[in-house]
Amino acid sequence: MRIYDIIAKKRDGFTLSKEEIEYFVSGFTKGEIPDYQIAALLMAVYFSGMNEEETLYLTMAMANSGDLLDLSRISGIKVDKHSTGGVGDKTSLVIAPMVAAAGIPVAKMSGRGLGHTGGTIDKLESIPGFSVVLSEEQFIENVNRIKIALVGQTANLAPADKKLYALRDVTATIDNMSLIASSIMSKKLASGADAIVLDVKTGSGAFMQSEDNAICLARQMVSIGTGAGKNTIAVVTNMDEPLGNAVGNALEIQEVIDTLNGNGPKDLLEVSLVLGAFMLILAGKTDTVEEGIGILEGTIADGSAKTKFKELIEAQGGNSDILDNSGLLPKANIIMTITADAEGFVGSIDAKTIGKASLVLGGGRETKESSIDYSVGVVLKKKVGDRVESGECVALLYANEPDRLKQAEELVREAYVFSDKPVQRQKLIKWIVSKEGISKY
Amino acid sequence: MRIYDIIAKKRDGFTLSKEEIEYFVSGFTKGEIPDYQIAALLMAVYFSGMNEEETLYLTMAMANSGDLLDLSRISGIKVDKHSTGGVGDKTSLVIAPMVAAAGIPVAKMSGRGLGHTGGTIDKLESIPGFSVVLSEEQFIENVNRIKIALVGQTANLAPADKKLYALRDVTATIDNMSLIASSIMSKKLASGADAIVLDVKTGSGAFMQSEDNAICLARQMVSIGTGAGKNTIAVVTNMDEPLGNAVGNALEIQEVIDTLNGNGPKDLLEVSLVLGAFMLILAGKTDTVEEGIGILEGTIADGSAKTKFKELIEAQGGNSDILDNSGLLPKANIIMTITADAEGFVGSIDAKTIGKASLVLGGGRETKESSIDYSVGVVLKKKVGDRVESGECVALLYANEPDRLKQAEELVREAYVFSDKPVQRQKLIKWIVSKEGISKY
Repeated sequence: MRIYDIIAKKRDGFTLSKEEIEYFVSGFTKGEIPDYQIAALLMAVYFSGMNEEETLYLTMAMANSGDLLDLSRISGIKVDKHSTGGVGDKTSLVIAPMVAAAGIPVAKMSGRGLGHTGGTIDKLESIPGFSVVLSEEQFIENVNRIKIALVGQTANLAPADKKLYALRDVTATIDNMSLIASSIMSKKLASGADAIVLDVKTGSGAFMQSEDNAICLARQMVSIGTGAGKNTIAVVTNMDEPLGNAVGNALEIQEVIDTLNGNGPKDLLEVSLVLGAFMLILAGKTDTVEEGIGILEGTIADGSAKTKFKELIEAQGGNSDILDNSGLLPKANIIMTITADAEGFVGSIDAKTIGKASLVLGGGRETKESSIDYSVGVVLKKKVGDRVESGECVALLYANEPDRLKQAEELVREAYVFSDKPVQRQKLIKWIVSKEGISKY
Repeated sequence: MRIYDIIAKKRDGFTLSKEEIEYFVSGFTKGEIPDYQIAALLMAVYFSGMNEEETLYLTMAMANSGDLLDLSRISGIKVDKHSTGGVGDKTSLVIAPMVAAAGIPVAKMSGRGLGHTGGTIDKLESIPGFSVVLSEEQFIENVNRIKIALVGQTANLAPADKKLYALRDVTATIDNMSLIASSIMSKKLASGADAIVLDVKTGSGAFMQSEDNAICLARQMVSIGTGAGKNTIAVVTNMDEPLGNAVGNALEIQEVIDTLNGNGPKDLLEVSLVLGAFMLILAGKTDTVEEGIGILEGTIADGSAKTKFKELIEAQGGNSDILDNSGLLPKANIIMTITADAEGFVGSIDAKTIGKASLVLGGGRETKESSIDYSVGVVLKKKVGDRVESGECVALLYANEPDRLKQAEELVREAYVFSDKPVQRQKLIKWIVSKEGISKY
């Protein structure tokens, strides 16, 4: 087998075989095939595409390129949850305690944020003392004991994906659906869960801005998951405005606590309940979304979800006193109020621009090497559809460096679009994609 | 300017600016832009194409990446001639002495052979003592003194093209018309001639097997040459069967001598006269092809072309006694006769397969590093349309290593296709492409 022939075959629009895909993934990962040949191949894939089978083979080859987490020592059906990333998306931190409190094991690896989107691992690290690194032994022991563990991805998880992604990132070959789907799913497959719930975001703050593209990505990921023998469901959800009110690491942890206390924003709760309900369905705990939502609402009402979050924090070395004393979370020195210039209604809030405002304040990473200020961010006081009086507060900026305030304020003002007529709120949960097909929620 | 944006722009089908093209060519040549980004860009060019202007800018950028030969110290209009490569194509060696004998300066750089095609420089090196390396000073002095010099390409001629070609060669991005045209023309522009005659071969032994592709390449090269301010004409000629009878370095030199003596194969002479006539036209010596041919025929009839070849050999250190004593050229130890199995007519002779037979015997290069046996090759005794009796000799193999004879014989037998009915000979000169358009010859 020669890499030249594989490039030419894909260039000419033919389908690559399983062996050819395994050959180039393994050769590239081992450094035996030079990056310039893989770069040419990736651009050929960009133009010629990959069919379902090729995409599955690519995903499996990348998943198998490094460590495969073995969760068999955890009893029960392990369900993973993944979001394609958004602004203010702290659903994992709401869902995991609820689902674990409902008796379903949550053994989850999460990622860090980059650019305008945040990451679950960064948010957890804003809890004083919390460690996102556990040995595999400890990870499994924690899940068996308290049903929940949340850690960062190990260095050797799908290394082929890491290397391919880095090359795609500098060769303008990110935006291909098969490559995006296989990149996400390779890490999910290597993480060892039995079933997967995917939250595919769509809208201005999402990677997939158009709904069509989000549906397409959802279908491809469900096809990969199913093809790899994992029960997989994708939920397409709105990311036109940020989810919840808080954007910024410690601010989002506070919002998670509020939500587990029963005082969270409605949109965050709704998305969390639906995604969590699908996890309960895949775990065999219930048959319907409605029943699943009921079970999860019960874990908030009876305080068991909050208790589960407390157990999680303590099991991973964090200070659980934050749950009842918000003063223990990292705090910004400056709080700036942004007010409305005129009365009206919030027409839209561009999620990406709000994410950028948080990034500018120091709450995100410009590059993978950037460090994060956990305390800063944006809290939205008005969301789409809300009525606003002139001079009323629409958002708060939390900052430590005064010279960054102006740019952040400009971004927030740019993100908010007002209307003088009442505005219809967007549907939050748009589509459910499963191996049976696609349906409106 | 960022290379990433240039890749994405071409990927999305937009036209690159002169500045963007110069940026990536210069960055790549200097090693500032890594090869994996250029590999992705080349594949994007493969799919999205380049328009006439982009192709011209790419050609100029590559030409300007290294030494630019300054031929201004040679008086008169300097006309270069280039062939896209074929089997048995020794036209340059026939044309150069004729044109020089007609008083037009020939200051020519030529290339070496690779694979099944030969190169003018290798053929010249089969003349004992002949040096293809001259200082620029000496090169110009020779042309001013005797109107003719033939040398190899200097190491620093269009280095960007050399580097890009090497990358295309391993990334399956050779077969793009704009990239092929600009690669050839960058070296022509850097070689400093005032006008260019291109021989674009088409048929089984040519790089452009289909006539449509050959015409397309011819148009692109004429467009580049014209765009760069050089009067350029392309002639599309047949390479379905080898040109002339001899294939192999010293064997082809002997055929050149025979032709200059007035005893050469008709097809070789015809192509040489037409190409040479266009050189005379571009040099302002004559207005019509017919008159040009007449002038060149005169240089053979009066012996002045042969005298010019003698002067060339002597000026570059070669033994000109070969002109009258063929025994002084490298000689093969074995001559094997291949005979016809039955009577009939030669229907076709696959040029590429004949080229491979010569390669197998040691007359060509498998890779750029291979060394060449100048004495070996194939001499065709029967060409397309010729009548053959059973047992009659159709070709001779010239070899030094007995164990290579069998494979070479098989190739020659495979190349020859016989017919029991008379066969029409193909037209040799197919199309003339100039800036005014395309016309049948």
